Amino acid sequence: MTKGALAILVHGGTENWSPQRWKGRFDDVCRDRRVILLPDASFDPAEVHFAAVWKPKPGELASFPNLRVIFNLGAGVDALMADKSLPDVPLVRVAVADLTERMTEYVVLHVLMHHRQELYLRDSQREKRWQPKFQWAANAVTVGIMGLGTLGAHSADVLRRIGFRVTGWSSSPKQIEGVECFHGAAQLDAFLQRTDILVCLLPLTAETRHILNHDVFAKLNRTSPLGAPVLINAGRGGLQNEADILRCLDDGTLGAASLDVYETEPLPADSPFWSHPKVVLTPHNAADTDPDEISKYVARQIERFEAGGALENVVDRKRGY
Amino acid sequence: MTKGALAILVHGGTENWSPQRWKGRFDDVCRDRRVILLPDASFDPAEVHFAAVWKPKPGELASFPNLRVIFNLGAGVDALMADKSLPDVPLVRVAVADLTERMTEYVVLHVLMHHRQELYLRDSQREKRWQPKFQWAANAVTVGIMGLGTLGAHSADVLRRIGFRVTGWSSSPKQIEGVECFHGAAQLDAFLQRTDILVCLLPLTAETRHILNHDVFAKLNRTSPLGAPVLINAGRGGLQNEADILRCLDDGTLGAASLDVYETEPLPADSPFWSHPKVVLTPHNAADTDPDEISKYVARQIERFEAGGALENVVDRKRGY
Repeated sequence: MTKGALAILVHGGTENWSPQRWKGRFDDVCRDRRVILLPDASFDPAEVHFAAVWKPKPGELASFPNLRVIFNLGAGVDALMADKSLPDVPLVRVAVADLTERMTEYVVLHVLMHHRQELYLRDSQREKRWQPKFQWAANAVTVGIMGLGTLGAHSADVLRRIGFRVTGWSSSPKQIEGVECFHGAAQLDAFLQRTDILVCLLPLTAETRHILNHDVFAKLNRTSPLGAPVLINAGRGGLQNEADILRCLDDGTLGAASLDVYETEPLPADSPFWSHPKVVLTPHNAADTDPDEISKYVARQIERFEAGGALENVVDRKRGY
Repeated sequence: MTKGALAILVHGGTENWSPQRWKGRFDDVCRDRRVILLPDASFDPAEVHFAAVWKPKPGELASFPNLRVIFNLGAGVDALMADKSLPDVPLVRVAVADLTERMTEYVVLHVLMHHRQELYLRDSQREKRWQPKFQWAANAVTVGIMGLGTLGAHSADVLRRIGFRVTGWSSSPKQIEGVECFHGAAQLDAFLQRTDILVCLLPLTAETRHILNHDVFAKLNRTSPLGAPVLINAGRGGLQNEADILRCLDDGTLGAASLDVYETEPLPADSPFWSHPKVVLTPHNAADTDPDEISKYVARQIERFEAGGALENVVDRKRGY
């Protein structure tokens, strides 16, 4: 029996990777399977059993009559879920250790930057001022993580080992050792009230769109040892109301923000974030994952699936992640 | 029997603490013992059994005929060891979890800043450039820690959990789980050759003075994934040859440096470090420890010692730490 073909539909490329480079990687790890890079190849759509995609055009996936599984080449499936004609086959998202660890690097770095007064210290260096300020220990500071999936749980673990108090909030109940877990709309306020550094790793869904807004920021710990609470968003730009972030930074509701994602990407040149003294911004590179790891992960799942095994990390279409 | 008095000799204050604040803390934790703040009080030097000191003047400690223990109010005893008339009684240095954890915060922050291209990303933000560069995973980068005492071992553990390869070098052999350990002059080159980020937490002694010099920097990994190796010194300023650091930053032997300590502190206004684009500097505040923790630690040791128990963290006068 011939193995089903794998079609690659990557538009614009993932952050650092062109469609051609993805093709090369998949050729390496799917040696006895046809790998088709769209839209270049001439092929029979019926051959395609699997699709590895990044932001495919709406309707594009509906053209494969024998499609069995869709693999999203990243953790967030929000762009894909917006396609109303998305075939009703299992949709798998990437959950490789490499992506998890890179996100933890980003989260730990930015939590420590704000905790250790990096904005103040860089200003001091620029102005040649030797003026250390009082520095709280990590155990005086609470990091609240929104989103307790694989990424949030791993970040929580490392932050806890560094000494921070860590709490978490998610839509459904979770249990993580050493982390006070809150869930659902009813417990959101209790979570926010004790949070000094808010880290957002939520998936973007209809429920979470613009969840990072003025009302939420105003409920963060008003007596934070950091002076004012801090926002770190490494989830999706659609989670944040950018006008609210700017307003809250300017009126002191927020003390600072680290942003990796934006409502429009690349961030437009006229965005006030670029030159805002309280914003630490990065170009959506918190967790650029090695395509090596992702392609191997997809190839392993295809092999197992064809052998009758179960798929991992299948998206729940109803909740949207 | 009256309890021996505790004399406090703090000159210039520790980083954020005045002698008077130390007096207040020790009064709180040594309630049934006389606490004398020098040089203000009139008292009988023979009463003094214990001294809690920070940079006492040479000869000052020799004036207490019944001195039994000296407590240094910080981790580094290099300033104290320079006093040739230092009484021959046990000298105890601070080793509290608070200091260890703060140092780990600093080390992890600065390792991640260089690993995650913070100097490049801050420049990009200033210039409004959305240009992510290729980012290596932590497991492609080796952090080499010089000094594997309490501080080095704790930093190593957290860095390892984040995913870095961690090696260590110390004067005497050590074993730390998951850390390739080198020791002594004979193994220094092997350690340096594989190091991408060099973290120095050594004590300052006659042997380690100016150990961070051109020859050492030139032996670091010349094919580092970071481009050029990075120096992080949070030990003592006397460990570094500052002219060599500047030369190596300028000729590319070093890619960047994070410095918390300097040959002269406060760092003079005319030091080129202040405005060097590859230097991230902090005003010797890597591990400002809570005097609460330190005073409790000293009080506990005094009580145990008077009850016939052993002192902890006694300095080996011969090796100098």
